[in-house]
Amino acid sequence: MASKNNNVEQERSREDSGFGTRATSTTARLIRSDGSFNVRKLNQSFESQLNIYHRLINMHWIRFGLFILLFYFLLNLLFAAIYYYIGVEHLEGISTNHGMNAFWEAFFFSSQTLTTVGYGKISPEGYLTSFVAALEALIGLMTFAIMTGLLYGRFSKPNPRIRYSERALIAPYLDITGFMFRMANEKTNQLMDVEVNIIFTRNEEVKGEIKRKYYTLPLERNKIKYMATDWTVVHPITTDSILFNETPESLEASDGEFMISVQATNDTMSDPVHSQKSYMYNELVWGAKFVPLLEAVNGEYRIDLSKVGKFELSSLT
Amino acid sequence: MASKNNNVEQERSREDSGFGTRATSTTARLIRSDGSFNVRKLNQSFESQLNIYHRLINMHWIRFGLFILLFYFLLNLLFAAIYYYIGVEHLEGISTNHGMNAFWEAFFFSSQTLTTVGYGKISPEGYLTSFVAALEALIGLMTFAIMTGLLYGRFSKPNPRIRYSERALIAPYLDITGFMFRMANEKTNQLMDVEVNIIFTRNEEVKGEIKRKYYTLPLERNKIKYMATDWTVVHPITTDSILFNETPESLEASDGEFMISVQATNDTMSDPVHSQKSYMYNELVWGAKFVPLLEAVNGEYRIDLSKVGKFELSSLT
Amino acid sequence: MASKNNNVEQERSREDSGFGTRATSTTARLIRSDGSFNVRKLNQSFESQLNIYHRLINMHWIRFGLFILLFYFLLNLLFAAIYYYIGVEHLEGISTNHGMNAFWEAFFFSSQTLTTVGYGKISPEGYLTSFVAALEALIGLMTFAIMTGLLYGRFSKPNPRIRYSERALIAPYLDITGFMFRMANEKTNQLMDVEVNIIFTRNEEVKGEIKRKYYTLPLERNKIKYMATDWTVVHPITTDSILFNETPESLEASDGEFMISVQATNDTMSDPVHSQKSYMYNELVWGAKFVPLLEAVNGEYRIDLSKVGKFELSSLT
Amino acid sequence: MASKNNNVEQERSREDSGFGTRATSTTARLIRSDGSFNVRKLNQSFESQLNIYHRLINMHWIRFGLFILLFYFLLNLLFAAIYYYIGVEHLEGISTNHGMNAFWEAFFFSSQTLTTVGYGKISPEGYLTSFVAALEALIGLMTFAIMTGLLYGRFSKPNPRIRYSERALIAPYLDITGFMFRMANEKTNQLMDVEVNIIFTRNEEVKGEIKRKYYTLPLERNKIKYMATDWTVVHPITTDSILFNETPESLEASDGEFMISVQATNDTMSDPVHSQKSYMYNELVWGAKFVPLLEAVNGEYRIDLSKVGKFELSSLT
Repeated sequence: MASKNNNVEQERSREDSGFGTRATSTTARLIRSDGSFNVRKLNQSFESQLNIYHRLINMHWIRFGLFILLFYFLLNLLFAAIYYYIGVEHLEGISTNHGMNAFWEAFFFSSQTLTTVGYGKISPEGYLTSFVAALEALIGLMTFAIMTGLLYGRFSKPNPRIRYSERALIAPYLDITGFMFRMANEKTNQLMDVEVNIIFTRNEEVKGEIKRKYYTLPLERNKIKYMATDWTVVHPITTDSILFNETPESLEASDGEFMISVQATNDTMSDPVHSQKSYMYNELVWGAKFVPLLEAVNGEYRIDLSKVGKFELSSLT
Repeated sequence: MASKNNNVEQERSREDSGFGTRATSTTARLIRSDGSFNVRKLNQSFESQLNIYHRLINMHWIRFGLFILLFYFLLNLLFAAIYYYIGVEHLEGISTNHGMNAFWEAFFFSSQTLTTVGYGKISPEGYLTSFVAALEALIGLMTFAIMTGLLYGRFSKPNPRIRYSERALIAPYLDITGFMFRMANEKTNQLMDVEVNIIFTRNEEVKGEIKRKYYTLPLERNKIKYMATDWTVVHPITTDSILFNETPESLEASDGEFMISVQATNDTMSDPVHSQKSYMYNELVWGAKFVPLLEAVNGEYRIDLSKVGKFELSSLT
Repeated sequence: MASKNNNVEQERSREDSGFGTRATSTTARLIRSDGSFNVRKLNQSFESQLNIYHRLINMHWIRFGLFILLFYFLLNLLFAAIYYYIGVEHLEGISTNHGMNAFWEAFFFSSQTLTTVGYGKISPEGYLTSFVAALEALIGLMTFAIMTGLLYGRFSKPNPRIRYSERALIAPYLDITGFMFRMANEKTNQLMDVEVNIIFTRNEEVKGEIKRKYYTLPLERNKIKYMATDWTVVHPITTDSILFNETPESLEASDGEFMISVQATNDTMSDPVHSQKSYMYNELVWGAKFVPLLEAVNGEYRIDLSKVGKFELSSLT
Repeated sequence: MASKNNNVEQERSREDSGFGTRATSTTARLIRSDGSFNVRKLNQSFESQLNIYHRLINMHWIRFGLFILLFYFLLNLLFAAIYYYIGVEHLEGISTNHGMNAFWEAFFFSSQTLTTVGYGKISPEGYLTSFVAALEALIGLMTFAIMTGLLYGRFSKPNPRIRYSERALIAPYLDITGFMFRMANEKTNQLMDVEVNIIFTRNEEVKGEIKRKYYTLPLERNKIKYMATDWTVVHPITTDSILFNETPESLEASDGEFMISVQATNDTMSDPVHSQKSYMYNELVWGAKFVPLLEAVNGEYRIDLSKVGKFELSSLT
């Protein structure tokens, strides 16, 4: 009876990042270098797959701009076709004597209705065209309402721009060595109550079966009040560290990966922000240390963001 | 004197989900299968009962669209009636020689005012009509402002789409059995710091009176850092588990229900999300286990969301 | 030396709600019955005193509507005066032959510009009028942008409507008595993770000086997972309770007040909500208990909100 | 081996605000008097440096208004130039017989298009001008959508206005002395769950090297439920306080600075707010105490905000 509880306790104390023990592929990293998860979902519902809000919020600004332009063009094209189909004679004021095609006149009328400019040189006439124009103006307003929300969402989205060192280092630390990476906030706003969590994961053979294991690395300090400058996060490789006997070769053999997660409070809107990062075994440098960044010049402190990843070789003890 | 304190301490240690001991009906579940609470409030104040924002935010998109269309139509009808009542001769530019009814001309003028298109072919004339049109344009802008907010609220509403297994299982777990259900995030965004809480509730006879009792089930793990893949939540049925001697029959007799609550952080906007679920005694399968989901294909992991609820029969020890 | 630290430790263990020991007036309660603080600030900066956003967000809907109407009317009046002063001959299309006053024509032109309807029957002409009209349209858009934000803020403002019992009771509880009040969520949305805190405060004589003292009352339970139904919050008056020897007379003599604060998570937007309430010594009923609310009818539970405060007399032990 | 772990433990217990041990400049304070960090970032990416949203949200209202006016003027100028370049003959309705310059007519047409007023006296004609006008209306709507979001962001930004005493005091406290400062909420809204943290930092010589050290000061109380009135935050200078043997001279010599951080919940929107403040060694007054603020008048309490920093001299023990 007691043995049952032992098994449960042992399983309970096993750490898990949420990927489980079956994620043992040596060709697939768990977190991509940019912080996104290397997982694809199959058979999402159409609505979930689309997830328009999520996509439009996270799309690059240039793509977002082009998307709006295209959407505007196509919507006007659609309404122009409808007006044209109903009959351009119901668009009072159309004058083909300027040499403009009636379809394009309908197109520009549509754009004037959709944006609610409504110059009025052209105006709808007859039930059907008037009705379509009334509908188009409503659709324009609704679309624009959605845009407003999207643009606000894009702007207010709490996306921290944390610049991580490209490499993590196995560096001298006090009189031992430590696993280290460095980061700094690229933006002008401030990050407060910054907390870091490092999960080291590798494949292990358990009773002849390859299983993925996870270990939270104890850090020199895992929380700072302000990240006003840069922060070198350190896991001291003491004798009881899971990394104590690791070598570049052993890490490669066990497909070692360091999953970093950072959370903080952004002071602009006092909102929580998150950031992920991952270092694979081949993104480590053994025997190097980061070059200091902080300088005091003319009564103010300065850090050079371009040097966040800068390190110099340094022999290990 | 000491006995008094004992009673207080005993009552204090009694768990309660918030439904209390009197919720003993065997025909009414506490949480519906979709996660909503099976409670109706009587004598709400009119304002609370209406709670327009809550309703419009949670309404299905199709109903929301129809609601807007209807609202737009009725508002224009109302203003058309007002303009008509004042006299259509005060709408300069109305031409009935196109065969259009003056009322509908007023209707379309109203729509052009409400949306602020204002083509100007028809324009108000005289104090009363001008005044009503000025008011209508303001109402249009305000309505539209509310729409903007509503649409933003709908989009940014943190509604997690967690797909739960349809059934909870009593499955083999290590060398004992466990109460299990499985879930996965249906959306493309990520859920972090996911925490699960299971309250098991049943009716018990206390001194000849039926009372509802609540027990928080200890879990194998109740929090994971990332829910990048699926998660099978397990309550190990150890010898000290409240479920240790339960059978399908005993659960039915005591009206057993498992109240699940999940909370997590959505990474799109770093906002907290909540989800509820409930399994009644008759939504359990005794002697079955979930089929694994995670696969590694071409350097990435995959999960098939359609198989979240898939299980196979498996004899219990 | 040791005595110094004793004093510090004693002061450190003294509880304080934030009002301090000097708030000893027997005519001024600390928290008003509606939950607001009974404190007026003098010499606020003009900007802080105005705090337009806070006011417009919290104003009653009817006052808010009237405020907008008045603002719209006055803004149009202002611009009408400007156009009139520049000269109505610069408003092309004004026709006084309908018997309308030129000033009011300018007023309606202003409203058409401010709302961006712009029918165009009247249009600006000349540099100055054109410039003012261009400015007015911008101001209209900006004002409207602010309105949109305000309306969204009003709607999305997390204002819980918790209905509190009008009276707090000293009621029989197990085999002793307890201080109790009851509350329920009036709205249709759900409150989760509801937490209650009661601070009892009274005047005490310390070394011949009247000082206000604060005591957090230990509760039967101070947190529930869901407030799906009603919740009777209980402070058991055990022998070590600060209320153990209190009588209606002693509470009045010491100006006793119970400061209630409730915090919870609203499930519509997963946002935190707060609510305050206060019971003065004369809002207590000694020897009464609340009438149960929860009923199961037709497979669902029901609570009658109008009975939240309903109690019946009941003798105390 | 044991010594290695000792070093690690010692380093782990060293406090750090996030500025690190190298911030030892005696001419540069860490936090400016207004609460901002005295750190400049070099080589920010263009996008991060710009950080338009952050800037526009935090800009002063007057500058923000001027920015919008300028932006509007320049955008209209640009489009006027485009219309002029295409040819003003494509702007139907332009009448130069009023003596207005065709360029300025184009400018005003542009403003009517951008704001979607669209009077229609002037309207675009021909493919190119019509196309540009259609684009301008879209740009106008998008710009306005961004404005709406910005204005909402500005209004809803949780910026607490905490008035701090200009000076921190070394004042009599019980039978010892204490480091104190006073603060009050300048706004009409309420701050709840207010928490204060004071880090004292100074330069220390460690093995012949100047390093910056950080010490969190234990407070009389570091959290209050409501900041309804004023709050004098006190660090009692007990015999084990880091300040016990400090003098004005020693603080100056070690470049002493007190970094204050306050966090609270704003009751208007239930959102978290943060505020920073710093007192340098030369912003301390030795031997003074704050003058009490709270008064009860006509059944309400009052505090005079202009006296938050008011102190009177008082000899220390």
